[in-house]
Amino acid sequence: MTIAQHRDRLDAQLAFVVEIDKLKRVIRRNTLIDGSRRENDAEHSWQLGVWALVMAEHAPAGTDIDRVVRMLLVHDIVEIDAGDTFIYDRVAVEAQEAAERAAADRIFGLLPSDQAGPLRELWDEFEARQTPEARYAKALDRLAPIMANHHNDGGTWALYKVTASQVLANVAIIEEGSPTLGAYAHDLVETSVLRGHLAR
Amino acid sequence: MTIAQHRDRLDAQLAFVVEIDKLKRVIRRNTLIDGSRRENDAEHSWQLGVWALVMAEHAPAGTDIDRVVRMLLVHDIVEIDAGDTFIYDRVAVEAQEAAERAAADRIFGLLPSDQAGPLRELWDEFEARQTPEARYAKALDRLAPIMANHHNDGGTWALYKVTASQVLANVAIIEEGSPTLGAYAHDLVETSVLRGHLAR
Repeated sequence: MTIAQHRDRLDAQLAFVVEIDKLKRVIRRNTLIDGSRRENDAEHSWQLGVWALVMAEHAPAGTDIDRVVRMLLVHDIVEIDAGDTFIYDRVAVEAQEAAERAAADRIFGLLPSDQAGPLRELWDEFEARQTPEARYAKALDRLAPIMANHHNDGGTWALYKVTASQVLANVAIIEEGSPTLGAYAHDLVETSVLRGHLAR
Repeated sequence: MTIAQHRDRLDAQLAFVVEIDKLKRVIRRNTLIDGSRRENDAEHSWQLGVWALVMAEHAPAGTDIDRVVRMLLVHDIVEIDAGDTFIYDRVAVEAQEAAERAAADRIFGLLPSDQAGPLRELWDEFEARQTPEARYAKALDRLAPIMANHHNDGGTWALYKVTASQVLANVAIIEEGSPTLGAYAHDLVETSVLRGHLAR
């Protein structure tokens, strides 16, 4: 390709990167670990990418960690249009699915089609949770708010009246992706209940 | 390894991930692309990881993009201790180097040593800028504030009295990593000068 042809593709890529800058303004329920403010989706996605690298040995043998990292970098991009959904709000979670698919069509569709396809597939794979990569990625995504709440005397759990059995349903998803991280998350839940930071 | 042995290593990994959560509170000079507020290092690192994937074709053939992504995820972690340095403040940049090495020793040193070494090497490689991966990663890192300023009528350039020749020194670093991105950055600088957003 000539530099001019590279530049045509670059224009589409730049439209995409300018668009996804908005992820920095999508605010999640949970706070930073230090409790100082609520977290945004962009910094959350960075965090999970590093977690995937650092906790790689807790994924099943043979898991493609670089694919997990790529998946985590794009896993929340649909929330630019669809917004963050609180995982314990079941009605909202179901209504969210169509909005997220439309968002994926629009946002990944800004890229040249040979690039839009593979990135969209990473997101579909993450959501479907059928591969070791997606299960490990999802485990980290579910672990993150449990960690944040644990470090903040229960954090959003009390605020939104979340119970231990609801959190344990997410711990089961963590266990699917990583038995070690699942066991750790289970301990955090038990400790939080004992401390009175999470209702039975 | 037994689950108990995994858990011993996990404790060190968790200490690391809790520590690096602080990167979300290290504030850079440049704003988000929409100009709404200044950017933090964590969301900046996420952004560059996605840019690396999406603009991969503008890196030299054979560049290991997954290594670039890993490098970018950890490239600013030292700033938790050493703080962000404005790239046009030459005196501060030189004084910064020792502080960043000490920060790398401390922060990566929280991990089990078999993990601390490879992550530290990624950071050393990024800083040395001798491999195609490091040069491409650094190109993206230098492109990001130029993009943000271009979208904000010059942004921090006027505020800190930065001139076009100073920005062009960074464009040369972008060109080393990617001729196409270098040409694009050069155009942004010229346009910004013509619009009166960057002094000659």
